[in-house]
Amino acid sequence: MRATVIYGAGDVRIEQVPDPKVADPTDAVVRVLRSCICGSDLWPYGGMKPSERGRRIGHEFLGVVEDTGADVHGLKTGDVVVAPFVWADNTCDFCREGLHTSCRHGGGWGARGVDGGQGEAVRVPQADGTLVKLPVGEDAALLPSLLTLSDVFPTGHHAAVRARVSPRTAVTVIGDGAVGLCAVLAAKRLGAERILLMGRHTGRTDLGREFGATDVVAERGEEGIAKVRELTGGDGTHAVLECVGTKQALETGLGVVRAGGTVSRVGVPQYDEGPVGPDMFMRNITVTGGVAPARHYIEELLPDVLEGRVEPGRVFDRTVDIDGIPGGYQEMADRKALKVLVKP
Amino acid sequence: MRATVIYGAGDVRIEQVPDPKVADPTDAVVRVLRSCICGSDLWPYGGMKPSERGRRIGHEFLGVVEDTGADVHGLKTGDVVVAPFVWADNTCDFCREGLHTSCRHGGGWGARGVDGGQGEAVRVPQADGTLVKLPVGEDAALLPSLLTLSDVFPTGHHAAVRARVSPRTAVTVIGDGAVGLCAVLAAKRLGAERILLMGRHTGRTDLGREFGATDVVAERGEEGIAKVRELTGGDGTHAVLECVGTKQALETGLGVVRAGGTVSRVGVPQYDEGPVGPDMFMRNITVTGGVAPARHYIEELLPDVLEGRVEPGRVFDRTVDIDGIPGGYQEMADRKALKVLVKP
Repeated sequence: MRATVIYGAGDVRIEQVPDPKVADPTDAVVRVLRSCICGSDLWPYGGMKPSERGRRIGHEFLGVVEDTGADVHGLKTGDVVVAPFVWADNTCDFCREGLHTSCRHGGGWGARGVDGGQGEAVRVPQADGTLVKLPVGEDAALLPSLLTLSDVFPTGHHAAVRARVSPRTAVTVIGDGAVGLCAVLAAKRLGAERILLMGRHTGRTDLGREFGATDVVAERGEEGIAKVRELTGGDGTHAVLECVGTKQALETGLGVVRAGGTVSRVGVPQYDEGPVGPDMFMRNITVTGGVAPARHYIEELLPDVLEGRVEPGRVFDRTVDIDGIPGGYQEMADRKALKVLVKP
Repeated sequence: MRATVIYGAGDVRIEQVPDPKVADPTDAVVRVLRSCICGSDLWPYGGMKPSERGRRIGHEFLGVVEDTGADVHGLKTGDVVVAPFVWADNTCDFCREGLHTSCRHGGGWGARGVDGGQGEAVRVPQADGTLVKLPVGEDAALLPSLLTLSDVFPTGHHAAVRARVSPRTAVTVIGDGAVGLCAVLAAKRLGAERILLMGRHTGRTDLGREFGATDVVAERGEEGIAKVRELTGGDGTHAVLECVGTKQALETGLGVVRAGGTVSRVGVPQYDEGPVGPDMFMRNITVTGGVAPARHYIEELLPDVLEGRVEPGRVFDRTVDIDGIPGGYQEMADRKALKVLVKP
């Protein structure tokens, strides 16, 4: 089959790789119907050191079960399924706590002999625990929105949940990428009464408004902090959803959060140290969030997607086939595309 | 009257200062029955730059109301009262959220014309909001434990509450100072089933065991982290109460916390930046806590103190009169005393 391999910054190739096969009895093989490129894929695309062997990439996909191992009991050939961006057994103590990203028998896609998601098919470890069956056909119009259950929608939701967004909460969302927009959608879904979206790409923030943002703040850094404070009577907001991952974004988060409030991070930190000293302490600020246990949230979010109450799939503004993936990376890196959908 | 003034590192003096008088109609004047020296007073005692004017110090006291302003309605002369370590109106939106340390009309002791607590009397701003009446006499044996409601007991409690300690929680407490020991007591009071106390002063950790610690870890740094992990099946604990304030203590906290868990800080950070990068993110760790809104917790904690179910006053192991305060600082700095009680 063909799949995506990254060899270094700016160097993504489509290559012939071995067809996936059931290796462990808990495996399934899934033919990919839809995959996509993630904002977090852009970090290696921007800075990975050249590698002779390369590595498989992609961690968001949905598809059709083609084969199952002897110990897979909840799935059968032909089922349409979505995979969260980390595979997990869904039974260990961490999974039972809702922290599938720390599963004792789980792991990531595209590492240690496991396929990446940007290919024609994927061997799925811990298939019963990892995959969630979708009550739709292979050609459903809902596939893009259902695909966001792999990552960006539960990631935005995780940011909102960890920040304890509820009705009456005022929320600042930092970042107008796909995760930021999904965080807006998630905050709105949880009833937030006011949602300030910090972003300066009008096409994206316009979608943010449709998703529920009540205010858009285009300013960045100190100016952005001043603007959010001005819009909130000087205090900032109780909840801040940090969907970028840069140190500046964290600093902005700590600048716009109200005393006693929470900065919930779902952008992968591109820094080792952050400003968590006396100011954060004297104002009783919480920093939380992390890599989202998407699997934990899929069942909760699925009905709203199936019934059309939310349309997170609107974050996809470009569709490519498998040969179009390298170009898709470049379009996202150039910010010409918000998020690229792949139809292998 | 006489009061304590700090002029720089190691330079604490007892001086004659003006008698406090009601200045604003919301003031009360309180004659101090008991005061004490705080671990956080040791930061300026250790490192304050020399000052010609000096500044008043002390933020924990209980006493007797001697005079009240025209707008004070909840207190009268003769009432025995305890003051939290930050004064507050108890009515603003922050106070209603339980965050009296961010009160819109509040402030600290010993600053901006407000007396410090280590003196014979104190002018108390926002007296109705700040002071809590105690149903005891001036000579009650409970005064030391009641005095801890000013700061160390609610501070330990705040650490535990912010870490969501509950029955079944395993807790690591970092630090065997008065706040660390009160954090043990608070965690026990909230039902924690296992409490690991990190500290290496046997006299203190012995009291920690009496307060509820089930394990004592004397090792520090990487060794301490390894020991806590060894004692918890490799995982660490869901809740970590960081009661020191050094960067090493934060690093230890992040090292011993279980994935998905919380490091709750109540030691004043002596650092500007901390290691809140990818490891914390990938393990979904929360960093929370901050300066404790003691006022918010006093009514909740008071019955257990009055009825003797907890005895936080046992953290006092030295009693001095007002002239003994400078020596008390030195004894605490030398770790000869855990916490010094002052009977002016």
